[in-house]
Amino acid sequence: MVKLVALYKKPANVQDFDDQYFNTHLPLANKMPGLRKVEVARITGTPAGESEYHLMAELYFDSKEDMQAAMSSPEGRASTKNLMSFAKDVSFFMFADVEKVPASANT
Amino acid sequence: MVKLVALYKKPANVQDFDDQYFNTHLPLANKMPGLRKVEVARITGTPAGESEYHLMAELYFDSKEDMQAAMSSPEGRASTKNLMSFAKDVSFFMFADVEKVPASANT
Repeated sequence: MVKLVALYKKPANVQDFDDQYFNTHLPLANKMPGLRKVEVARITGTPAGESEYHLMAELYFDSKEDMQAAMSSPEGRASTKNLMSFAKDVSFFMFADVEKVPASANT
Repeated sequence: MVKLVALYKKPANVQDFDDQYFNTHLPLANKMPGLRKVEVARITGTPAGESEYHLMAELYFDSKEDMQAAMSSPEGRASTKNLMSFAKDVSFFMFADVEKVPASANT
């Protein structure tokens, strides 16, 4: 499994950003073909105090090929275009391979 | 649900870092009380090319209180101490609340 990780720095207007992100962008992103799972998390801080980051989103796909196809699809391009209209200056993306790690000793 | 997100920049010696991370650190981190899930991902790149980041780890807990208790526990302190012995200069941490997001339109 692979994922697209999007990190968003604190926007100038958090309420406006959240409205555009959750009500417009996320529904568009969810239309991408091959998307298996989405996890969005609100950054609440760091061990040192406040974080410069606001949100982190992870979009999961079965393979790197599926992720690339999703981003190149009409739905992916519409989603990216929308995102760039309000989050261009605060967003940062990474591609990642999810590793198989041993199960927790606690579970 | 909350998570501790750890981002690691590319270390000077990737093979040595991975050996210490996967074979020593992760088993120690897995001993933390209240830890519900761990996801480790290998950063493979960015839309612009190579990433400055190497790994991302996410440690999930039921609540902020559980996460704080885990980090303050003897197991949490042993895990942090170990991590700082080899990853101090490349690591970066964030706390986050996992948001409830609508299910994908595709599933």
